[in-house]
Amino acid sequence: MKAFQDFYPEDLSQCYGCGRLNPHGLQIKSYWEGEESVCRFQPRPYHTSIPGYAYGGLIASLIDCHCTGTAAAASYHAAGRPMDSLPAFRFVTASLKVDYLKPTPLGVPLEVRARVIELKGRKVVMQASLSAEGELCARGEVVAVQVPPGMFGE
Amino acid sequence: MKAFQDFYPEDLSQCYGCGRLNPHGLQIKSYWEGEESVCRFQPRPYHTSIPGYAYGGLIASLIDCHCTGTAAAASYHAAGRPMDSLPAFRFVTASLKVDYLKPTPLGVPLEVRARVIELKGRKVVMQASLSAEGELCARGEVVAVQVPPGMFGE
Repeated sequence: MKAFQDFYPEDLSQCYGCGRLNPHGLQIKSYWEGEESVCRFQPRPYHTSIPGYAYGGLIASLIDCHCTGTAAAASYHAAGRPMDSLPAFRFVTASLKVDYLKPTPLGVPLEVRARVIELKGRKVVMQASLSAEGELCARGEVVAVQVPPGMFGE
Repeated sequence: MKAFQDFYPEDLSQCYGCGRLNPHGLQIKSYWEGEESVCRFQPRPYHTSIPGYAYGGLIASLIDCHCTGTAAAASYHAAGRPMDSLPAFRFVTASLKVDYLKPTPLGVPLEVRARVIELKGRKVVMQASLSAEGELCARGEVVAVQVPPGMFGE
């Protein structure tokens, strides 16, 4: 099954967090599971903060890119368009909020889930959670805004 | 001049964002400039989002780690203790909020500035800004909480 990010046009696939063409990046993959989108990611050993725990900036990055991907997928769905149709829906982050509820263990896969709270005009608001082995470690809220086609040399 | 992060004990210097002993990480350096703390960072070419622009997760990471460092430095200052004295003040992030005001150009050094808004008990609240060549690109707010000595195997 193709992930949301596998449908991004090549020139929008360089992102450090979610670009499949960035060899240095995280290359996250997001999918629908019912009403929610989900992304599973295995941090590398060096994605640490305090030894034994995952880096908070990584957690913010996962929530951020998973949500911009979810915003694109939700917009295709709302428009009744297949995800490989053009012009591509592509979103940037207007605001990102992360509450770190407890230290996130390093060494296990992390699961990020997101749900669209509002989709109106060019703006999508999402709530996200990040858990490790079923335990909720962080909560996030992302406001994403659609990049106008043609901007950024697209 | 030594940066805040140069004073972290070795076992707390592994952080991907600010640990001087993490060879894969960002190794940010923060200093006082009057009442504000400042961190200058040159993103690598692969720290991109949309081509030509810096990755939002990197911006969140810079604000996050610069603020936990600022929280530690401000706590030493408030306690009238030198930064190499033990037990070490070390903070983790309880919440992180970033507003992306405009796309941040890639290829130029970024400057993160932070200011302590509240320092009470084990909690420090800070406001931060991120600019590129004098232009404000993002604003952040961080709530950091002191790690109790002895926690996390310190």
